[in-house]
Amino acid sequence: MAVTSRDVARLASVSQPTVSRALRDDPRVSEDTRRRVREAADLLGYVPSEAGRALSSGRTRRVGLLVTDLANQFYAQVIAPVHLELEERGYQLMLHTESADNETVVERLIANGLDGVILATTTIDSVAPVRLRDRGLPFVYFNRTSAMVDADATVVRPERGFDQAVEHVIELGHRRIGAILGPSNTSTAQSRESALRAALAARGVTLDANYVRRCPFDTSAGDEAAASLLALAEPPTVIFCGNDVVAYGALNAARRAGVEVPDGVSIIGFDDLPAASWPIIELSTIAYDFAAMAREAAGLVTQRIVDPDSPIQHVEFGTTFVPRRTLGEASAT
Amino acid sequence: MAVTSRDVARLASVSQPTVSRALRDDPRVSEDTRRRVREAADLLGYVPSEAGRALSSGRTRRVGLLVTDLANQFYAQVIAPVHLELEERGYQLMLHTESADNETVVERLIANGLDGVILATTTIDSVAPVRLRDRGLPFVYFNRTSAMVDADATVVRPERGFDQAVEHVIELGHRRIGAILGPSNTSTAQSRESALRAALAARGVTLDANYVRRCPFDTSAGDEAAASLLALAEPPTVIFCGNDVVAYGALNAARRAGVEVPDGVSIIGFDDLPAASWPIIELSTIAYDFAAMAREAAGLVTQRIVDPDSPIQHVEFGTTFVPRRTLGEASAT
Repeated sequence: MAVTSRDVARLASVSQPTVSRALRDDPRVSEDTRRRVREAADLLGYVPSEAGRALSSGRTRRVGLLVTDLANQFYAQVIAPVHLELEERGYQLMLHTESADNETVVERLIANGLDGVILATTTIDSVAPVRLRDRGLPFVYFNRTSAMVDADATVVRPERGFDQAVEHVIELGHRRIGAILGPSNTSTAQSRESALRAALAARGVTLDANYVRRCPFDTSAGDEAAASLLALAEPPTVIFCGNDVVAYGALNAARRAGVEVPDGVSIIGFDDLPAASWPIIELSTIAYDFAAMAREAAGLVTQRIVDPDSPIQHVEFGTTFVPRRTLGEASAT
Repeated sequence: MAVTSRDVARLASVSQPTVSRALRDDPRVSEDTRRRVREAADLLGYVPSEAGRALSSGRTRRVGLLVTDLANQFYAQVIAPVHLELEERGYQLMLHTESADNETVVERLIANGLDGVILATTTIDSVAPVRLRDRGLPFVYFNRTSAMVDADATVVRPERGFDQAVEHVIELGHRRIGAILGPSNTSTAQSRESALRAALAARGVTLDANYVRRCPFDTSAGDEAAASLLALAEPPTVIFCGNDVVAYGALNAARRAGVEVPDGVSIIGFDDLPAASWPIIELSTIAYDFAAMAREAAGLVTQRIVDPDSPIQHVEFGTTFVPRRTLGEASAT
């Protein structure tokens, strides 16, 4: 049988409300009584239920992380640091893996009694931020922003990384430049596209529309998009990919088409996931500290929970180009 | 301001307890009253809190999934099907990513008011199953079993896959057979080792202890273990790896050592993760339906929650060898 606060109350000779007050260190309960209750609870192996605690304090100390595509290796890398940072701040991570960013998701987050939410999936046209704001549930954007509702956010500044990458690419003689961009309704895809175009423009190069593809951030979509570029009569000599996962797809497409990397085509990613540096992959990519960014997002949401009226913060993370095997000289036409 | 059940009660002209009863379709409340309460709740946009519901029903409809190493691509593949199956059965997934399988973890699972738990991390000497049984919290083992406490489980039967793999390996002329086994305190590593040894023994081959390494199920550990095998004066011509993630490490080690795969060494994995079939990897591996196994585990735990006294089930999943590029003829000595 489960031990209840009634059993603890009886053993400690106090009332039931005193038990819950004592166990959450309510100053209205004397030091001596608190000690007596704790000893009784230890003796009986009593664990106060979260549900009871949530009703009495109004806080659950649970933070939700909303992710759409867990199979994406990027999110798997992000969850551990978010969990760690929340744990250090006394919060628990509740992962929500929703297939659709719809009304129901927000109702559920609220019904679950979360103290706050980290949004890692919101497309820029999503209604989730509006609903969360209207319901007064604290939230932060992870690796994205939204034009509709301003909120605390951690964002990547891709400019420097693309500038360095394009500098290398031009020096290596590339002029037929391809790009597989992410979905146009995500702020990540938008900011990377702008940074790539700006870095090229600064060197008098424009992106030929024939060499541009758009696809979801996944490997099979990247494979298909790259295959269509490589099938052109005069294919690009280098392909910038929306992220590393897409770039893995491009490497697969090149292998299937019998095109050597980098001799036949160069491939560049974005994120610098662990596999990017594996000897069998050696992907040239644009890196930033995504673990630090994940911890920062966790920190921001707990600050927002504690202090709802503090000024909104956008914390930016810079990028660096990491040249590896998959970038080489432009192949002769 | 948040709408409360008091507001709904006032609008529907019923008592507060009637509101919560009506919203969980308690048969003590008439059809007519239930409809009136639902309409009032809809009108006000009232969402009953999980905490309140949990206290009144004793059920939270939340199931925990306990995972240690989320960065391991295997678990990222498993979470989506678990989530989907639970959702279809009206349960929510609460992911627990714990770094240690210790007493605190179990206390937390209980304190969180979960209805049941899927254990995906337990080593065979773990105390978690004992504690969960003592506390009466329903749980199932995912991809493992425990000698200490029997419970519902989904398990892989590796025998057929290893038998087929070893048949190929012997036919291709391999006799110097290496193995990078998983941690000896996991049932997965134990069952794969037994199956490998049995398949070899059936063909009169034994595993030379010099060709055996043991390491955690991760890529960098696999890399290191394979490097030490490849550095031997007479290295193995084929290496069986504890899982695909370890095999990726072995491929990295071979690349770094300048050993061609499969001409210099053949590599075999276990799991058949999506990347195993990528053209740039093409890993020979032992496959089973891990998505079906994940859904089965979710089904078992919800059945156990509803019917605590039903007989314990162990659901087994068979394996098949999938030959790909990384397995070739034994290299000449």
